[in-house]
Amino acid sequence: MNLNKIEHIGIAVKDLEKSNQLFASLFGAPHYKIEEVASEGVKTSFFKSGPNKIELLEATKADSPIAKFIDRKGEGIHHIAFAVDNIEAEITRLKEEGFTVLNETPKKGADNKLVAFLHPKTTNGVLIELCQEIPSDSK
Amino acid sequence: MNLNKIEHIGIAVKDLEKSNQLFASLFGAPHYKIEEVASEGVKTSFFKSGPNKIELLEATKADSPIAKFIDRKGEGIHHIAFAVDNIEAEITRLKEEGFTVLNETPKKGADNKLVAFLHPKTTNGVLIELCQEIPSDSK
Repeated sequence: MNLNKIEHIGIAVKDLEKSNQLFASLFGAPHYKIEEVASEGVKTSFFKSGPNKIELLEATKADSPIAKFIDRKGEGIHHIAFAVDNIEAEITRLKEEGFTVLNETPKKGADNKLVAFLHPKTTNGVLIELCQEIPSDSK
Repeated sequence: MNLNKIEHIGIAVKDLEKSNQLFASLFGAPHYKIEEVASEGVKTSFFKSGPNKIELLEATKADSPIAKFIDRKGEGIHHIAFAVDNIEAEITRLKEEGFTVLNETPKKGADNKLVAFLHPKTTNGVLIELCQEIPSDSK
């Protein structure tokens, strides 16, 4: 299988604390983790729904991609992330299929993942993230 | 657990045939089902990603919710659907938590499901669907 499952859905929010309460009410359970990714200008929290996660994203600076997204579209779904076993192989495969990969060298994302994004212009307007767990021996 | 997993993500598309090809390239496998839901003015196709599905949605009439969504926002993610065991109980629970349920009586959706939607105004701009498999003895 190329894309093993929906690893998580990323949701852009204005106020992480407020949204954490909202999603805790929705799921009937609180977030289990908060993590800041300084390089992306974002603070994240994670919720579980069975095999899947929901990642809330709050901008930590005015020029972060999440701040720009909210300015343009308001709060809401920002991206879908699919779990892959081998992100390099998937990047190669998807480029050959005609998709535009935003970062051809995977970068370190939240939640101990290597990530790469596909340009929404080549994916029906959907920002798609590929993510691969970083093996524990390479930390 | 209240929301067992992400059952599917619904993506609004303009041209189902074209998008079926695009998503087949993405997943490395074609859609496994096409289904029209006349009451919603929509034609759908389904892809699998492990325990999750992607549902592409093409409007079949100009006044369908999907046509209006595309007019307003363009192609892209339309909703997230969570699987629940007991949709009536979840509707009651979520109303008590302060969410607005768009249809308090579950309706028949695609893929043999009873569905209900939460108003995006109460869920951070995210249209959330609850869906419960229709038991085979009640068909």
